[in-house]
Amino acid sequence: MKAEIIAVGSELVSGQCLDTNSQWLSQKLGDRGIPTHFHTTIGDDLAENVAVIDAALNRADLVLISGGLGPTQDDLTRQALADVAKVPLQEDPTSLQAIADFFARRHREMASRNKVQALFPMGAKPIPNRTGTAPGIWMRVGTSMVVCLPGVPSELKIMFTEQVIPRLVDLNWIDQVIVHHKINLFGRGESEFEAMAMDLTARGRVPAVGITASDATISFRISGTGPDEAEARAAIEPTLAIIRDRFAEFVIGEGTDDLPEAVARELARTGKTLALAESCTGGMVGELLTNIPGISEHFLGGVVSYANSAKIGLLGVPETLLAVYGAVSPEVAEAMAIGARLKFGADLGLSITGIAGPDGGSEDKPIGLVYLGLSTAEGVTTKRLDIGPEQPRAIIRRRSSKHALNYVRLGLKGLRTV
Amino acid sequence: MKAEIIAVGSELVSGQCLDTNSQWLSQKLGDRGIPTHFHTTIGDDLAENVAVIDAALNRADLVLISGGLGPTQDDLTRQALADVAKVPLQEDPTSLQAIADFFARRHREMASRNKVQALFPMGAKPIPNRTGTAPGIWMRVGTSMVVCLPGVPSELKIMFTEQVIPRLVDLNWIDQVIVHHKINLFGRGESEFEAMAMDLTARGRVPAVGITASDATISFRISGTGPDEAEARAAIEPTLAIIRDRFAEFVIGEGTDDLPEAVARELARTGKTLALAESCTGGMVGELLTNIPGISEHFLGGVVSYANSAKIGLLGVPETLLAVYGAVSPEVAEAMAIGARLKFGADLGLSITGIAGPDGGSEDKPIGLVYLGLSTAEGVTTKRLDIGPEQPRAIIRRRSSKHALNYVRLGLKGLRTV
Repeated sequence: MKAEIIAVGSELVSGQCLDTNSQWLSQKLGDRGIPTHFHTTIGDDLAENVAVIDAALNRADLVLISGGLGPTQDDLTRQALADVAKVPLQEDPTSLQAIADFFARRHREMASRNKVQALFPMGAKPIPNRTGTAPGIWMRVGTSMVVCLPGVPSELKIMFTEQVIPRLVDLNWIDQVIVHHKINLFGRGESEFEAMAMDLTARGRVPAVGITASDATISFRISGTGPDEAEARAAIEPTLAIIRDRFAEFVIGEGTDDLPEAVARELARTGKTLALAESCTGGMVGELLTNIPGISEHFLGGVVSYANSAKIGLLGVPETLLAVYGAVSPEVAEAMAIGARLKFGADLGLSITGIAGPDGGSEDKPIGLVYLGLSTAEGVTTKRLDIGPEQPRAIIRRRSSKHALNYVRLGLKGLRTV
Repeated sequence: MKAEIIAVGSELVSGQCLDTNSQWLSQKLGDRGIPTHFHTTIGDDLAENVAVIDAALNRADLVLISGGLGPTQDDLTRQALADVAKVPLQEDPTSLQAIADFFARRHREMASRNKVQALFPMGAKPIPNRTGTAPGIWMRVGTSMVVCLPGVPSELKIMFTEQVIPRLVDLNWIDQVIVHHKINLFGRGESEFEAMAMDLTARGRVPAVGITASDATISFRISGTGPDEAEARAAIEPTLAIIRDRFAEFVIGEGTDDLPEAVARELARTGKTLALAESCTGGMVGELLTNIPGISEHFLGGVVSYANSAKIGLLGVPETLLAVYGAVSPEVAEAMAIGARLKFGADLGLSITGIAGPDGGSEDKPIGLVYLGLSTAEGVTTKRLDIGPEQPRAIIRRRSSKHALNYVRLGLKGLRTV
């Protein structure tokens, strides 16, 4: 069993856009035991599409094509597949209705060009697309299966997971499972954590443990294989237990859970409410928390106090504190945290004030200097971060937000005295 | 003249690593007038390497191969190229000395396996590598040129820029420059904009105009060719003028400028100040705006009024409005916008209130229903968005934020009566 993935789009082959679909699809196929042998990327040229699909059918059992299913003139995948299979295109009334419904739900008129998205090579089956207008295509050509999905990554991922995997299981093309599990840590650098885990990350160890860093979150990735998911999961359990135990205070979550999820979980566990006062992060901490459905029970809101007048007027920060210590100071971080807690009537108030750059730094207060404040009924604490004057604005803001979330997390867990 | 780029590595085709070399090389070739028609990615398998290189020689004039030049057993590019060209491998003493020198400079011993990195197919020329051990390969096979470079991106980029480009100039394969320019639009769907630009996007038109969509921002990408950059830029100017004129009210920026930059520009142009009241977006609009350095002159701050009590307490939304109309209503959007403007003392107050899902929708007020409000000294307006109940929470929040920014932009440009 071999798979080939074809990405279609002149914007990809010209280097204007980076194709990430092929990597994602290879990973997901690999996790179900189907190895990908070839990725091919081509532009919006019919003859080249036909030649490449034809070559793929000669060397792969499963040909996955992403892109070229849109309504515009340069979307040629439908036509290329029909040409390769030597069959005509025909309209599928169900798909046409689904596209019309999609526009109706948005109170928008369907452009006549969108009709071509309901055309399929004769003998093909549509793959429904519940989040976009382009249905996918499922078609046997000779001994190979061809699957066409839209190039929009969010649509492709949903359709692959919900529609393609079950069809491959039905075909009996999937018979083993590789599982990966991630345990996410925060609070130390990648090399510090790795030094604490040399026994686990050694080459050749089974199950394999990898370590990766993304935006100051450090993840252990544990991979196990088995005839089914239960056995593959059982193979990694003892290793997971070692990591959970050894890194307990640093573990912020597992799988896709990062700091926002950890804070949401701790708020739910303790039944407490939180309010924010953000300065240099401009709303990022609120944005991260409200990305979590259901957070509204515990997150009351925040003030983005970008101007000093907002710190005074909306948070009640005393004007003299700003004059004497400046907006980026432990004193103002304290007052902002207290203000957020009191104005929103929350159990906890969290504040962030800092210098994100690229201007505004001084010798005393360099770019990357950030103060966090955390206020509860018991008192208020602050923490100083030095993210580094050489870091770009976006990194300083993101790291500040993550440290702020970790500061609340530790407070809620009782790991930090407030 | 056509180029094909081949990326070699099992870690790429399995999806473990993302190949970014092919994108980078395509861009650089494209900018010098050599279009890339194919990207192919293969694993460390000799037969597949030979077949893929052979196919590339039949369809491309320039074949660029990245990866597979290391010292280990799975580095097969040298052997595969020799097999395709039907010549033996032979050792190049100069390259062997360069590799030995590289190790000596680092006070490390050269492993005997590194010797294979000095092997070249007979007739090939080495391409020196000043930052790593693997020399590249420059070889004519039939009428095509084959260029092999190491897969390490930093080494590949230096060698391509310093060594490959001059060789292509010497061959007279490079004699032109291609420039690209993007004009970004917001406010209609991709197919609607395309319907208004059929004359521009027609295949074969010079200069070429492409259209792409990213997160509801629609971009026209205009590409022009000339013997030098100035002439290439001159070739696209008339087309840029047509697009700027025809889509005037929809143009939010050019190049990398999106809606936050457009709002920052309009605030600076008009000298006005802005404050926010965000509900379902939870701080995202503030986060997007404060990502722009220097925005603090015009952006005063915002209230993330996630809880109703925050809408009442911090923004002064009358409790009866919330009781009668609900938090997601034009009436509450109005009151939030007015509250933000007055509490911060800003010229404009922008509000967003909506249902981001996945819960909380009803028949009357489905998930994806969002109201925007814009308040100025002259009055207040609202706008209803229907983003669609099938969209994930993250998309509803991102689209709402972008529509909100566009709403202020239109207000500041006087394109919408406030």
